[in-house]
Amino acid sequence: MVHETYRKLLEVMAEVVDLNRAAAVLHWDRLTYMPAAGAMARGEQTATLARIAHLRSTSPEVGAWLEALRPYEESLGADSDEASMIRVAHRLYEKATRIPTELIVEQALVAAAAHEAWLKAREENRFEVFRPALEQVVDVSGRVASALGYVNSPMDAFIDVAEPGITAAFCEGLFAELRAELVPLARAIAESGRQLPDSVLRNHFPAEQQLACGTAAVRAIGFDLDGRGRVDTTVHPFAIGCSLDDVRITTRIRPDDFGNCFFSLLHEAGHGMYEQGLPRRLDRTVLGEGASGGLHESQSRLWENLVGRSQEFWQYFLPRAREFFPQQFAGATPDAVYRAVNRVTPSLIRTEADEVTYNLHVMFRFELEKAVLEGRLAVADLRDAWQDKLRQYLGLTAPDDLRGVLQDIHWSGHFGGAFQSYTLGNVIAGQLYAAALADHPEIPEDIARGQFGKLFDWMRTRIHECGAKFAPGEMVQRATGKPLQARPYLDYLGRKFRSLYGLS
Amino acid sequence: MVHETYRKLLEVMAEVVDLNRAAAVLHWDRLTYMPAAGAMARGEQTATLARIAHLRSTSPEVGAWLEALRPYEESLGADSDEASMIRVAHRLYEKATRIPTELIVEQALVAAAAHEAWLKAREENRFEVFRPALEQVVDVSGRVASALGYVNSPMDAFIDVAEPGITAAFCEGLFAELRAELVPLARAIAESGRQLPDSVLRNHFPAEQQLACGTAAVRAIGFDLDGRGRVDTTVHPFAIGCSLDDVRITTRIRPDDFGNCFFSLLHEAGHGMYEQGLPRRLDRTVLGEGASGGLHESQSRLWENLVGRSQEFWQYFLPRAREFFPQQFAGATPDAVYRAVNRVTPSLIRTEADEVTYNLHVMFRFELEKAVLEGRLAVADLRDAWQDKLRQYLGLTAPDDLRGVLQDIHWSGHFGGAFQSYTLGNVIAGQLYAAALADHPEIPEDIARGQFGKLFDWMRTRIHECGAKFAPGEMVQRATGKPLQARPYLDYLGRKFRSLYGLS
Repeated sequence: MVHETYRKLLEVMAEVVDLNRAAAVLHWDRLTYMPAAGAMARGEQTATLARIAHLRSTSPEVGAWLEALRPYEESLGADSDEASMIRVAHRLYEKATRIPTELIVEQALVAAAAHEAWLKAREENRFEVFRPALEQVVDVSGRVASALGYVNSPMDAFIDVAEPGITAAFCEGLFAELRAELVPLARAIAESGRQLPDSVLRNHFPAEQQLACGTAAVRAIGFDLDGRGRVDTTVHPFAIGCSLDDVRITTRIRPDDFGNCFFSLLHEAGHGMYEQGLPRRLDRTVLGEGASGGLHESQSRLWENLVGRSQEFWQYFLPRAREFFPQQFAGATPDAVYRAVNRVTPSLIRTEADEVTYNLHVMFRFELEKAVLEGRLAVADLRDAWQDKLRQYLGLTAPDDLRGVLQDIHWSGHFGGAFQSYTLGNVIAGQLYAAALADHPEIPEDIARGQFGKLFDWMRTRIHECGAKFAPGEMVQRATGKPLQARPYLDYLGRKFRSLYGLS
Repeated sequence: MVHETYRKLLEVMAEVVDLNRAAAVLHWDRLTYMPAAGAMARGEQTATLARIAHLRSTSPEVGAWLEALRPYEESLGADSDEASMIRVAHRLYEKATRIPTELIVEQALVAAAAHEAWLKAREENRFEVFRPALEQVVDVSGRVASALGYVNSPMDAFIDVAEPGITAAFCEGLFAELRAELVPLARAIAESGRQLPDSVLRNHFPAEQQLACGTAAVRAIGFDLDGRGRVDTTVHPFAIGCSLDDVRITTRIRPDDFGNCFFSLLHEAGHGMYEQGLPRRLDRTVLGEGASGGLHESQSRLWENLVGRSQEFWQYFLPRAREFFPQQFAGATPDAVYRAVNRVTPSLIRTEADEVTYNLHVMFRFELEKAVLEGRLAVADLRDAWQDKLRQYLGLTAPDDLRGVLQDIHWSGHFGGAFQSYTLGNVIAGQLYAAALADHPEIPEDIARGQFGKLFDWMRTRIHECGAKFAPGEMVQRATGKPLQARPYLDYLGRKFRSLYGLS
């Protein structure tokens, strides 16, 4: 028999999830098809949904139920669905009740206006157009961090929401470990005098065929498009679950560049497959979600890079890509494409960065966010600070704001604690893939034959089907038998790129 | 200074409108882009939004405020925004509190499942596939009617929601008046031995150009597509306001038929222009909507028929249509198209019916709804009853269910009280257009030159900008100086079709 108080708790969760999913549809619509002038009203609608969801999930009634459920929770195994449900609900309740509902509403309204300002600033290619709105976003985010509370840095408040149990200090340690190998690796590549040609990707690739080709690829790896998913185009690609059976991914297309759309789609399909694989029995509860931002990125980066930029993938996929681009890929070989998609070169755009330099983009954004939130850097100076960091980390200067401080959508909604998840995702992807390979050494051969089932099933069983029952550290431990660590990822990068660039 | 209680009332209204608009986006999405498997979760989301909106608008607090506002209401002119707001809010509160919230939720869930069943039944072209779901819809609708209360017929309960102040008996009187002239007119046309050829509309019209051509037409008449509107395709065309600055219309396309897509778009654009013209000062209140279903249809039927099927319209538009279809319309004359789009012939599909026989489709649906809701007809017999009525009213037999009882989307959501609004709309359109012509006799000449501004402005000022301040009867009285009456509409039809068919 279901515990009566537990049943009531589940009812409230279902209601809150419905509100959040309605908000997800509104979010997707805003970024794909909404007429531009609808933005302000959409902001009001989103704020109202957020307000009601917050009021409902922080009602004293819910708090009382959670207290009353403690003995029930303790009577169950910690791994059980029920104990996990109560444990996670408790954590979320603790966090949510610290933030006043009015601040939630203010944040939603500020985000709606800031997103419009960001779009406008991008059109005009001027950070100054975005700055006033960004100042508001930073102000609101700062107050949210204070409300959530932290010991060392406001960043901790946000990271603990995105990655339960992980701190800014942990991220900085991880970053240092990565830097210690990646910076020398990037330098060795630059100084090798060798470069991988990528001219095979620079050609005219008509938009419609790019979308068709990328869609064929995401279908092949396992993103379910048969009535359970969609692919659309947008400004900044994203994936979103509108429900377990309605998961949508988006991409952008540059007609002179094969990789942009293609790898965005593989990336977002990784997120999408995670969303489609969440456990049905936990649907409409706090556990029916991805475990953390980093776990989510582990899935997207896995399919984008460890699979999509592998030699075996292009043995399989080049003939298929040639169906869409017979002329463009006429003389190409799998090896040539493999090399082209792995060209390492310091670049301006994070989402297009190669695997060796990608994390450097994350690190400097993390440092900028931390400096702003800790009051050490003014928003007005963010553009210049971006240039400084870009020079320091990648030796580059952004020729304009579009390719600099205006490139990411994240700061138009919330400021702080989003980027570290990408690097955590890379690291976790390396660790998960190594574990999957240990279980199934034949995975690369499978990939070369276009068979992704073993890898897919491994992720589905070990990751997707756990939902949000466990914190990211525990998820990794359970899936791989080892604590979260950078070693497998660094080994993967070192092996792959030393070989590609013929380094000793 | 704004009355404090009034201000609180407005706050709740804004919240409820936001929830309803979020539901509108979800509805639009379901009927355009949602992956099929998302239907059940979407039903849950919609039910949750409906539940919260109903709880909020029926809270005892709102009732108390409305009572407390009576002296304030009486101190103001009845035409004032404030008095109208309180009056309309009171009426809606009275209605809403009669329905238990659980019934609202049940209705939303039943509608979601029934819509899927309707789509499936259409695919299989079998009423039986839809029947069980329809029985549930009828059952729930019957209980909603009982909850709302009525004296003579359950139909009255629904009609008074859609058309405040109008009864089933009034509709029946109006139908009798129309029948008395339209049936003889249709007979005279049939017996004239003359028929208007419509072969100019039967050709291959590629889908993409049809959409572009129709979009050009709705732009021309005044539907604002510059960041405030959209056009998409769907199964059963509809228009929907997701906010004042985000109004969406939809159409369907048959590549062998020019008229289907084109007139659907003109029709939905009529709705859309109404939604785009609602008063901004009344936005996010109960008055920021169309005045009634009939008033809404008056706008759609006006632009579809009184404008779109006029001789003058085709003098203007044929050359533009020829830009999209140079070969198809190579030898066509405006007069030939005018005649083709006005061919009168008893037909199977309501939305494609000519102006003379259209209302007969409405009348028999009305009779069927009334018989079912009054318990005189079983859902199991609805298919046969449809055939009987179709024979009686139009002398036809539907060759299959798709062109018979499965054709309208309406019964998949709610049963009863929707169709009369189309005929009310026709009648009101006739009366409004006659009044607009009396004020501006040059309107037809304007139309022949592609200038729609005078008619558009007349509708905007007299209808759109009133929002939902007045009941439909009063709206018509205010706009035309006369009570709602069929005479101008019947005169218009008689004049137009006697001339087209050369009847005395």
